Amino acid sequence: MTATLDFWFEFASTYSYPAAMRIGALARASDVKVRWRPFLLGPIYARHGWRDSPFNVNRVKGRYMWRDLERRCAAFGLPFARPARFPQRSLLAARVATVAGGEGWAADFSRAAFRASFAEGRDLGEPTTIAALVAALGRDAETVLARAAAEDIKARLRDETAQAEALGVFGAPTFVVGGELFWGGDRIDDALDCARGR
Amino acid sequence: MTATLDFWFEFASTYSYPAAMRIGALARASDVKVRWRPFLLGPIYARHGWRDSPFNVNRVKGRYMWRDLERRCAAFGLPFARPARFPQRSLLAARVATVAGGEGWAADFSRAAFRASFAEGRDLGEPTTIAALVAALGRDAETVLARAAAEDIKARLRDETAQAEALGVFGAPTFVVGGELFWGGDRIDDALDCARGR
Repeated sequence: MTATLDFWFEFASTYSYPAAMRIGALARASDVKVRWRPFLLGPIYARHGWRDSPFNVNRVKGRYMWRDLERRCAAFGLPFARPARFPQRSLLAARVATVAGGEGWAADFSRAAFRASFAEGRDLGEPTTIAALVAALGRDAETVLARAAAEDIKARLRDETAQAEALGVFGAPTFVVGGELFWGGDRIDDALDCARGR
Repeated sequence: MTATLDFWFEFASTYSYPAAMRIGALARASDVKVRWRPFLLGPIYARHGWRDSPFNVNRVKGRYMWRDLERRCAAFGLPFARPARFPQRSLLAARVATVAGGEGWAADFSRAAFRASFAEGRDLGEPTTIAALVAALGRDAETVLARAAAEDIKARLRDETAQAEALGVFGAPTFVVGGELFWGGDRIDDALDCARGR
């Protein structure tokens, strides 16, 4: 039986970007299967009384985070450009990733969306951006965007977010192996080790 | 010239414990000199409007942190026991570490205090605990505790805390090399690499 790891991520989350770009190769090297689980941090933050990213609420921490993210991306050889708007509006991307998850292309779409957002300065909240990303993957953008607006997809994303919260997820990225949570890109290796039963 | 790293830590900070226990050997192996810089997070948190540890304010995050800390300590071979009281009252320990810093025994005292707090379940806020730790280091506890209560020591700790804040420190442990900040025990290696000019 292949070991499995759930990768919970949010398109507006800064540290989800390097995690999304790295998890595929790392998991392959470890013979671990990754389940891409897009969810929304907004509703979970709102429950904590936060109406904005903690990195905006605490400007000093936010300043550090941008510098740290820049350094991390450089260390991983990932392009990085600070988005003009933060946090990005991630709802549409999360819904499209939910559609993609049912059709086997969630990883490809998610990596493309993170790259657009954190490397190319594109506005993820714009349907035209999402449509272009979908089309670049050889999918029919109109069909996919219509599907992303369907009630069952909206409900599925809400359910996923509720499941993340029920698991104890409070931030992104979070890697879950069985009942064990690993929060943050710095825990990828630990999570993979855990998945392999080490 | 030996490369130098400033290790800013807070005795009540959970992740400062493994950092304090590891930094000495890691820095020696990297030929980097460590300056132990005790400070108080309380005044900095208060400026953000927090009256308690973020791990208590956000119980879900707190629950994760304790599990993560337990796992980290196990991975590092460090004993760990969750303190009965969190956060511990760290003012006296910070003042004694400030005294010790002027006399060359800050690292020894700090490691002993962290061990007492996070491995032995002792109450750091109790002067008897601190006195015992000081005495175990072969110092006269009465003299040291009197010194710790002197106005110049209190002022020096306030100044150090103000300097940490001015540097952009918002949490502990934080490693500072030149103007570059590295927050969290996960950044020890990056900070040492930076100190060596890599």
